[in-house]
Amino acid sequence: MKIVVQKYGGTSVGTTERIKKVADRIIKKKEAGYHVVVIVSAMGKATDELITLAKEISDSPAPREMDMLLTTGEQVSISLLSMALIAKGYSAVSFTGYQLSIQTTSLHQKARIKDIETSKVMQALEENKVVVVAGFQGVSDDNDITTLGRGGSDTSAVALAAKLGAECEIYTDVDGIYTMDPRKLRNARKLDVISYEEMMEMASLGAGVMHYRAVELANKYKLPLYVASTFEDKKGTMIEYGGQKEMEETLVTGMASSLDDMQITILNLPAASTTLYKLFGEFAEEEINVDMISQMITDGGNMHVSFTIPKDDLKTAEKILNRWREETPGIQWETNTEIAKISVVGLGMRTHAGVAAKLFEVLAENKIEIKMVTTSEIKISCVIDKAFEIQAINLIGNTFGLGSELE
Amino acid sequence: MKIVVQKYGGTSVGTTERIKKVADRIIKKKEAGYHVVVIVSAMGKATDELITLAKEISDSPAPREMDMLLTTGEQVSISLLSMALIAKGYSAVSFTGYQLSIQTTSLHQKARIKDIETSKVMQALEENKVVVVAGFQGVSDDNDITTLGRGGSDTSAVALAAKLGAECEIYTDVDGIYTMDPRKLRNARKLDVISYEEMMEMASLGAGVMHYRAVELANKYKLPLYVASTFEDKKGTMIEYGGQKEMEETLVTGMASSLDDMQITILNLPAASTTLYKLFGEFAEEEINVDMISQMITDGGNMHVSFTIPKDDLKTAEKILNRWREETPGIQWETNTEIAKISVVGLGMRTHAGVAAKLFEVLAENKIEIKMVTTSEIKISCVIDKAFEIQAINLIGNTFGLGSELE
Repeated sequence: MKIVVQKYGGTSVGTTERIKKVADRIIKKKEAGYHVVVIVSAMGKATDELITLAKEISDSPAPREMDMLLTTGEQVSISLLSMALIAKGYSAVSFTGYQLSIQTTSLHQKARIKDIETSKVMQALEENKVVVVAGFQGVSDDNDITTLGRGGSDTSAVALAAKLGAECEIYTDVDGIYTMDPRKLRNARKLDVISYEEMMEMASLGAGVMHYRAVELANKYKLPLYVASTFEDKKGTMIEYGGQKEMEETLVTGMASSLDDMQITILNLPAASTTLYKLFGEFAEEEINVDMISQMITDGGNMHVSFTIPKDDLKTAEKILNRWREETPGIQWETNTEIAKISVVGLGMRTHAGVAAKLFEVLAENKIEIKMVTTSEIKISCVIDKAFEIQAINLIGNTFGLGSELE
Repeated sequence: MKIVVQKYGGTSVGTTERIKKVADRIIKKKEAGYHVVVIVSAMGKATDELITLAKEISDSPAPREMDMLLTTGEQVSISLLSMALIAKGYSAVSFTGYQLSIQTTSLHQKARIKDIETSKVMQALEENKVVVVAGFQGVSDDNDITTLGRGGSDTSAVALAAKLGAECEIYTDVDGIYTMDPRKLRNARKLDVISYEEMMEMASLGAGVMHYRAVELANKYKLPLYVASTFEDKKGTMIEYGGQKEMEETLVTGMASSLDDMQITILNLPAASTTLYKLFGEFAEEEINVDMISQMITDGGNMHVSFTIPKDDLKTAEKILNRWREETPGIQWETNTEIAKISVVGLGMRTHAGVAAKLFEVLAENKIEIKMVTTSEIKISCVIDKAFEIQAINLIGNTFGLGSELE
């Protein structure tokens, strides 16, 4: 049995007109000989509207009841999409996460999928029905309705495809994965293929489209993911093991840039072995996500450390730093919110040295100061002045061939 | 354990502000020493909005998917109401019909309750929680989500109260059952008590407030129903076995009037024993609900018959009648859409003769012609010219003491 799991996001099912178009796309796949399982998100702004209602009731709504509320969003989508398929003469049946026994942990609003019982899906497919499943939701051991949190619907699709041994297609409002956000790199190129590892790095850098968690799960099951546009018939991007297969591997596959971070620099910290542990422990306790860290010990035996955190956490960070200054006289700290974090990602870096050097060179030639650098096996991130963001992106894009050739 | 089941309709939970007020009312009952189970409908216009979405997808949406869609309405209400109770410091838990195993027949959109598994409710009550249950919905033997159709939430409340051996309170946007619609009989009086039979007659005459089906179920289990306003602290009406307990029983408990019907009169039908059966069989086939029927045989051996049907069915009725005239030359028929049907209802009629005579007398004295009459054990209905509706209502209201005394 040739099964495909297709996932359609909130924008794709944002209106009843769009739902009918999604039905047409599903029918096309069915006519091509596939058994189709569809995962849908809530319609457009439906989830936001439900959250607004909850906030009118309480500043911190009970998480179990929040899940009870939010899961109605996908339930509306699955019923309307099934109606649309039936109205077009096809057999279809919708299921909530509860009905399908999509078993999750009990942590409301952030549950994780434990297992999916596929017998109901298989039975419906054998009856030649299109199976329409509510994404983002499941049921806990206590029979409570749960939600999977951010990236939940993509994760539902990947998990179900893995269990069914099916192909997996993610339809969304962009037509694939680009080397860089085309709003920032004008001639950014759409990738035919990207590896799981590269996509995970891109996703964790906030390069939209796919959520880190879903890519991680696909990687675990070595499940190829096809990402394409819901409303255009352009070829999309395949996320799969190993990435690009060209003989001459490209060094850099993609790039991401963020203006959401800020840099904190602390000078003259005592160079005790416990200092960093204590410092970042306090940030962790406040749930502040510290991203890049660079540190050095001076000749005088003092330590300087520089790191980035989300701009939103500035106030909380200042409280921590003021406390440290009281307890450890002599330290100084400064903050800089006017930064851009630019990252390049590529499996090729594993085997080819010199990517960092080339990056530093092109920025130095153009007098763009690098304030901070961190590297991992397949990623280099650097912090520069926010004013130079777009210039740097274009310089780096040209250097590593991230733009389309005919531009 | 002292348990009360309270039901709040769609208007009562129409906004988040109103939901908070409903929470206050529940808390008051809880503080009075009750374990509280709450049944809620969908918020205000929510169901209508969902139906509009479905109609945009298809003129005749698949019934199973329609139920999947509509049940989200109550799911939103139960989660918001539970959040409100929790935010006010009380323990609460919401359940869908599916979660509570409210078992129904499989007829989508018109399912009937077969049984309710109450162990989950009892466990939550023992944990001192307010239990908030989605009305109007259940689950079929095939594990499909079903809805109960019109009057569904009231029926959910009555069924659950009967199973739990609980008291049952119906909160709505009117403050009780009146002798007559106060928009038509200005000094209509609110009843302290009404019997199941009287309420069923009133409900089937379209006298709002409670649906026939829920009253019928309450009657079956001899479960007293208290009907009162959600937002006022006025005393409501008790619907219970036997009705009013005063020594001097009133003859007439209530009155209803409808302008939705029309009268059809057929003259010179053949007086064969099969004629009426055939005629009304054809109306039944077209699902036209024939209400009042009066018939007579003339000296010449011909039959005249007069009956009422809903005005909406005029076109279909005309088709049937034209067919009859072709097949049975000599018959004549006429229609009258300008009629009012006025009915009086009262258990007292069982034991006291003369209600009909009194009714005819007061109308005759005021020169209001009665075009048709039917009577049952506790009800008299008569058809008059629409123009005299309000006059007749006030005359009858005064005659049988249906108005308040100090007017």
